[in-house]
Amino acid sequence: MSDQERHRKSGGRAARQATRKSAGAQREAYLTRLIKPYELASEEILSVLEHNADTILEEIGVEIRDYPSAIERFKNAGAHVDGTRVRFPRGMCRSIIQASAPREYIQHARNPLNNVRIGGDATVFAPNYGSPFVHDLDNGRRYATITDFQNFVKLSYMSPYIHHSGGTVCEPVDIPVSKRHLDMVYSHIKYSDKGFMGSVTAGERAQDSVNLARIAFGGDLADRTVMTSLINASSPLVWDATMLASAEVYAENNQASIITPFILAGAMAPTTSAGVVAQTLAESLVGMAFCQLVRPGAPVIFGSFASSMSMLTGAPTFGTPEPAMVLYTVAALARRLGVPFRSGGSLCASKLPDAQAAYESAATLIPTIMAGTNFVLHSAGWLEGGLAIGYEKFILDCDQLGMMMTFGKGLDASDNGQAMSAFQENDPGQHFLGTAHTLTNFETAFYRSDTADNNSYEQWVEDGSQDAATRANRLWKERLAAYEPPPLDDAIDAELQDYIAKRKAELPDTFG
Amino acid sequence: MSDQERHRKSGGRAARQATRKSAGAQREAYLTRLIKPYELASEEILSVLEHNADTILEEIGVEIRDYPSAIERFKNAGAHVDGTRVRFPRGMCRSIIQASAPREYIQHARNPLNNVRIGGDATVFAPNYGSPFVHDLDNGRRYATITDFQNFVKLSYMSPYIHHSGGTVCEPVDIPVSKRHLDMVYSHIKYSDKGFMGSVTAGERAQDSVNLARIAFGGDLADRTVMTSLINASSPLVWDATMLASAEVYAENNQASIITPFILAGAMAPTTSAGVVAQTLAESLVGMAFCQLVRPGAPVIFGSFASSMSMLTGAPTFGTPEPAMVLYTVAALARRLGVPFRSGGSLCASKLPDAQAAYESAATLIPTIMAGTNFVLHSAGWLEGGLAIGYEKFILDCDQLGMMMTFGKGLDASDNGQAMSAFQENDPGQHFLGTAHTLTNFETAFYRSDTADNNSYEQWVEDGSQDAATRANRLWKERLAAYEPPPLDDAIDAELQDYIAKRKAELPDTFG
Repeated sequence: MSDQERHRKSGGRAARQATRKSAGAQREAYLTRLIKPYELASEEILSVLEHNADTILEEIGVEIRDYPSAIERFKNAGAHVDGTRVRFPRGMCRSIIQASAPREYIQHARNPLNNVRIGGDATVFAPNYGSPFVHDLDNGRRYATITDFQNFVKLSYMSPYIHHSGGTVCEPVDIPVSKRHLDMVYSHIKYSDKGFMGSVTAGERAQDSVNLARIAFGGDLADRTVMTSLINASSPLVWDATMLASAEVYAENNQASIITPFILAGAMAPTTSAGVVAQTLAESLVGMAFCQLVRPGAPVIFGSFASSMSMLTGAPTFGTPEPAMVLYTVAALARRLGVPFRSGGSLCASKLPDAQAAYESAATLIPTIMAGTNFVLHSAGWLEGGLAIGYEKFILDCDQLGMMMTFGKGLDASDNGQAMSAFQENDPGQHFLGTAHTLTNFETAFYRSDTADNNSYEQWVEDGSQDAATRANRLWKERLAAYEPPPLDDAIDAELQDYIAKRKAELPDTFG
Repeated sequence: MSDQERHRKSGGRAARQATRKSAGAQREAYLTRLIKPYELASEEILSVLEHNADTILEEIGVEIRDYPSAIERFKNAGAHVDGTRVRFPRGMCRSIIQASAPREYIQHARNPLNNVRIGGDATVFAPNYGSPFVHDLDNGRRYATITDFQNFVKLSYMSPYIHHSGGTVCEPVDIPVSKRHLDMVYSHIKYSDKGFMGSVTAGERAQDSVNLARIAFGGDLADRTVMTSLINASSPLVWDATMLASAEVYAENNQASIITPFILAGAMAPTTSAGVVAQTLAESLVGMAFCQLVRPGAPVIFGSFASSMSMLTGAPTFGTPEPAMVLYTVAALARRLGVPFRSGGSLCASKLPDAQAAYESAATLIPTIMAGTNFVLHSAGWLEGGLAIGYEKFILDCDQLGMMMTFGKGLDASDNGQAMSAFQENDPGQHFLGTAHTLTNFETAFYRSDTADNNSYEQWVEDGSQDAATRANRLWKERLAAYEPPPLDDAIDAELQDYIAKRKAELPDTFG
């Protein structure tokens, strides 16, 4: 029986097994890397880039827009304030961060088996974030809905290689902007028991996220981080009130923020990678220091998102060499600073789950792992520069995440790995299929892809000459059909729904 | 004007420019890496694996089939011979190699601008090798012909990212096996002026290759290496007469051999990567030592080809984590031995230039570069486990090779790279597009893909909603239409043709 036939005949069962595997003990809740990070830049160059970031903060500074209390906090901590421009003495932000920010932290999940460690040698994969559109082979590209949102929460829950439910996996545009954060947070809690992210589109929405999490987890959360949320700078060198207010709410409540300069190099930063790195460091130092000023010890992640750009059209480009260089370099700076690092994912500019999408995604994801990234947003599903999340792309990316989980364990140099017993029992010219060593290792030998077709050409034709995207189309449907929700206490569910109903009654409907 | 339109309207001109760029001085003849290799395994583990290879050679040894003179050479050098089984005292092969094999060498090309350095910090990309089938979107999969062969020689000649014309880029099955080596070597000389590989399917065909090269280059070649040819072990632990006879011809004539154990792990080696590595080292040590015994100083490359396997079907699998681990580890062993290293490429099992092909190829090519590989066969075109070369796949892969050439230069930490002048002239919140720094760097900022579509979704739809393979289909046709051959002296051409005519008259037609 071929791989193809096996899939076809036992699809539902295989999907259910995957769910059980995802929920159970065999699965790793996150990747603990045994391989060391790749160091692209020397320590000397890293020191220069740190110096440059300090120069930017000292001489140019950042604009803090519409948030006087943040300016006041920085002023009290030693910054020089000139209206909304804030300049920082060399090393000030670094000192604040290093005095209290944790090197790593645990994000608690509803199911403790899904708690993740963020920082150090741990890598956590979270799905795509922020796309207003969805794509699948059947219906093409269309606006995302709350049903799509929930589908991706379910698919993330079922994947053994996605460790975290993410945040705005797509924008549910069928729900008013003013209210959709409530449905998103509820969907993460209801349809998954992995960790999730809170809303950052307004301080009060961050507070709603905290309030819902309090209901779901019980207690005031001061002793437990249960959300890791995404705070973006307005590059270049601007922090705005929306993001700072959200970060403030999360820090006050001991919840984690990913402080991420979101940079299209050439437009929002210089064209050169070393320039992008220095700016990224400068902007993130300010955001992370702000969180530590709000509440020393609040978990923060040093984030970096940097794409290159088509100099002909101004369009962002992905999977090119320059963002990979930025990624490696900023990762090393995060290690020097002593905080967890977020970057990368399965990024691409392609509109389809085609060869372009895959080359670009791999050229982002492999550096993501090799750089030792701790938290990987956009691990699966990303299409079209983030404007769309694709169902087939999600399935294909998950398979690649599985490969990274194997690669991250490095070379097995144990006695069994060395396999000298196999050589001792096998003459030259004889195949190893029947050796005791091969039989012992049969089940665990080699990563098994669930999307690749490795059959003969003839078998592949007999199976319908399908490309990878077509096979993935079948897989996501099988998985959604086999989805079974994790348990959720009825009283908690009712309390969550009551809170949401009350808030929705208070809030006006706004779109866009 | 969009990227797409630009391509469409100026396709022929762009292709001609590419040709000129390929032939001219702006292009690098090969990649000189400025980044350091990634070290997956510790020095301690590498020592263990070297010890294991020595144990295999000492206790099990290799079979030398149908080639008594090779056995005699090894016996005279200190090996223990028992019939066709040859066992080697610890360290014997390593000592022979380290006494005379060059750490790097120059392969001369017809056009000296295309000479390549093989070894050290140099990386040379050569195209696909050995496929009996070709694939393109118009005609699907079919047997390869000499016309296909010549087309790929032309496309390799025109690509600025392919440094070497390769060898059996595909099998021209329309020409008798006994004669096709003559047409292949001639095609490399006639349609390209980059370096090439000779025939290895029989000692006399290797000699024909040498004779043709003597005509093309003039002289006896003793002072110049002009061919680098592919010598595979018959894993596990067998060397056969065909390969040893060919290696002998090349070594006698100071031509280079890539000594490559070709291993489907699980069948031709143990399932575990550390086992594959030790066996690869053992087999290649024997082949490289053989060449040094034939002619001390003859260039040799330590080669490794290792795929994983589907344990369900026995099919080879590509782009999985295990072969990448083997690649990194064997590359490090080659550095310790002090010889150039060959492995990797753009390998995949997919039958189409789809997402599977791209994920798998990237998951091979990126480790190839990160491992510091010196000679990369199968850099472009590979499909279906090597059974087919694809026209569209070739174009897509070349684009990835271009990205690797940029990545291999690492982070530019020069003053211009640091871009501090850009920050000094740019206020927070202002884009950098108009800064002097951006204008200075406009032309060279970011790798520019010729196959990716980075346009808006709306523009992409207007351009026909093409996937990457469809765009590549147009590109290879444009390039072949724009091909212009490099100069070849008429007298030399006539002499080559006379030699071939004479040999073809002597040789019987054999197929298969």
